[in-house]
Amino acid sequence: MSNFNIAVLDGDGIGPEVIAEAIKVLDVISKKFNHHFEYTYAPVGAVAIDQTGDPLPEETLALCKRSDALLFGAIGHPRFDNDPSAKVRPEQGLLKLRKELGLFANLRPVAGYDELVDLSPLRPERIRGVDMLIVRELTGGIYFGEKGRKDDGNTAYDTCTYTRLEIERIVKMAFNEARARRGKLTLVDKANVMESSRLWREITRELARENEDVELNFMFVDNAAMQLILNPAQFDVIVTSNMFGDILSDASSVLAGSLGLLPSSSVGSTVGMFEPIHGSWPEGAGQDRANPVAAILSAGMMLDHLELREEANALRLAVNRTLAEGVGTEDLRPREQLGTRAFGDRIAAAV
Amino acid sequence: MSNFNIAVLDGDGIGPEVIAEAIKVLDVISKKFNHHFEYTYAPVGAVAIDQTGDPLPEETLALCKRSDALLFGAIGHPRFDNDPSAKVRPEQGLLKLRKELGLFANLRPVAGYDELVDLSPLRPERIRGVDMLIVRELTGGIYFGEKGRKDDGNTAYDTCTYTRLEIERIVKMAFNEARARRGKLTLVDKANVMESSRLWREITRELARENEDVELNFMFVDNAAMQLILNPAQFDVIVTSNMFGDILSDASSVLAGSLGLLPSSSVGSTVGMFEPIHGSWPEGAGQDRANPVAAILSAGMMLDHLELREEANALRLAVNRTLAEGVGTEDLRPREQLGTRAFGDRIAAAV
Ligand SMILES: CC(C)[C@H](C(=O)O)[C@@H](O)C(=O)O
Ligand SMILES: CC(C)[C@H](C(=O)O)[C@@H](O)C(=O)O
Repeated sequence: MSNFNIAVLDGDGIGPEVIAEAIKVLDVISKKFNHHFEYTYAPVGAVAIDQTGDPLPEETLALCKRSDALLFGAIGHPRFDNDPSAKVRPEQGLLKLRKELGLFANLRPVAGYDELVDLSPLRPERIRGVDMLIVRELTGGIYFGEKGRKDDGNTAYDTCTYTRLEIERIVKMAFNEARARRGKLTLVDKANVMESSRLWREITRELARENEDVELNFMFVDNAAMQLILNPAQFDVIVTSNMFGDILSDASSVLAGSLGLLPSSSVGSTVGMFEPIHGSWPEGAGQDRANPVAAILSAGMMLDHLELREEANALRLAVNRTLAEGVGTEDLRPREQLGTRAFGDRIAAAV
Repeated sequence: MSNFNIAVLDGDGIGPEVIAEAIKVLDVISKKFNHHFEYTYAPVGAVAIDQTGDPLPEETLALCKRSDALLFGAIGHPRFDNDPSAKVRPEQGLLKLRKELGLFANLRPVAGYDELVDLSPLRPERIRGVDMLIVRELTGGIYFGEKGRKDDGNTAYDTCTYTRLEIERIVKMAFNEARARRGKLTLVDKANVMESSRLWREITRELARENEDVELNFMFVDNAAMQLILNPAQFDVIVTSNMFGDILSDASSVLAGSLGLLPSSSVGSTVGMFEPIHGSWPEGAGQDRANPVAAILSAGMMLDHLELREEANALRLAVNRTLAEGVGTEDLRPREQLGTRAFGDRIAAAV
């Protein structure tokens, strides 16, 4: 019997609903495999701003630091997006959390499900066989660089900075991920224009010498945006900077037509954070309509990270089996349509 | 009878071949409408580096400045991409040209052709009805900002800077383009994280007050990358910064499955530059395989810019008619496959 302390930051919008289903499934797993997961809830995002004025209250951060893993729902509310004068934004909570916990790598697997090929915006022949992993740098680059105003506010700037250390650690991780998969790594950059991209390319070339078993290639980000649509099956592992990764991983996430199915992990230090990629969908909140699978599979990535491999596989098997039965939430256009909770029940029962 | 001085910078790879076909069609137009186009050729890109050591020789720039318009082929060669130590790169020529000529706006129309709907990587129902224009800022932002190295080369940075002036002029242009089309404008940014994006949003909101007949909305760049794949028909005009525009316009360009058909214009000062978007395709050079339509339609955008509307329409009609006959280069998978030159002949004959 092992004990794990899980911080649950379910956040805004549909976050709490989908995380509740992930915990439902984890509860079955923990009973079956005889573990104990201790869940502690804490506010983050818009909810935390409302309660405390801070999108990442000190207590939430402290809890995360002493936990074994973090289950994260979603953050964000249109009320803040449409208020340019907002001094405090939910997103700041997420950015600070990543930085403070040293979560420098965001891993996003994207794979198609054969049963769901018709949901893809791409033609079936383009989506079949897609199975890739985007490794996005998460605590450097332009989202974290120095920024501000000059000339009475009439000039604004953001700085994209990368250091050798920041690049090395993520590229090394990407080489390892590639080795454990199909052995292909693509560095996406804009080395024909950006100095920081040239440093990425330099260091990646150096590391390639110690990773000769992995096939490495380079691609400019504009071309990568095209190739992801034209022929996504060509990719195995993509590694890239924070901003390019933000854009490309979101583009990739819709290829399989099932945003509601895709999990992610953010890792780097010992604590890992596990999060569905779909965001807070405020319009769908509280309606029992959100797809819980991405959150459940994120819990699966958490089990992997805690080195509970068998448990993680049992979880994924339960998801696959349930999907193959043709049940699901409305976004999957299933034969048998269920609400969030009922879909979670079926997956939990399938474990 | 009017006279126009056209600088022809046909550049690298397939550039010269496709530009030759554009000029073939322009020659027919000029005879028919009684104009005189005076073409002066000048080197740019890798070709210019080989000849002079400079991707944009002084004489080329001087020629451009005294011309009425520029026909541009393509630049770039893999020899430079794979040499991180290259001090001179073809791309520098293009960036300098844009800056020196004040070409601050890149306009990229993307529309599907009904006959070619099967070429799209998207399902037919997603691509039908797509008709959008991406307005990309072209001489500011991170591609032109201060960049360099620190810490013995182990830290690299690039700066994204935007001034009020730079943002105002392009957003104004975008409002006008939207008004002349379906009256919808989308500003794409990352205002939840970037200070420069917040300035874009601020100024765009201000300008919206003078453009109340245009429907304005805002979208984060990561979401835009998804929406372009999920539902590209929702967009009319998109306006965005240099880097976001680079990525999104390339992504959009493959949606219709016909990269070889898409023209672009870069405008701002009096001289305009007209350029197929497909790039230099070095592997295809000299083989009579490249699709000349993008170059021909770029010449059409040039005619529009020279206020030769009837001529521009005649050119477009000739292209549409030829495509409707089911002829084309291999990339179009046509009923009757032609080489670059023969396809150009057919379009010229259809004028
Ligand atoms: C909310 C925002 C700051 C965040 C990011 O861009 O990093 C989000 O888009 C994501 O991708 O997790
Ligand atoms: C060659 C490169 C500098 C250029 C750019 O990114 O601006 C190209 O990709 C383009 O989009 O015209």
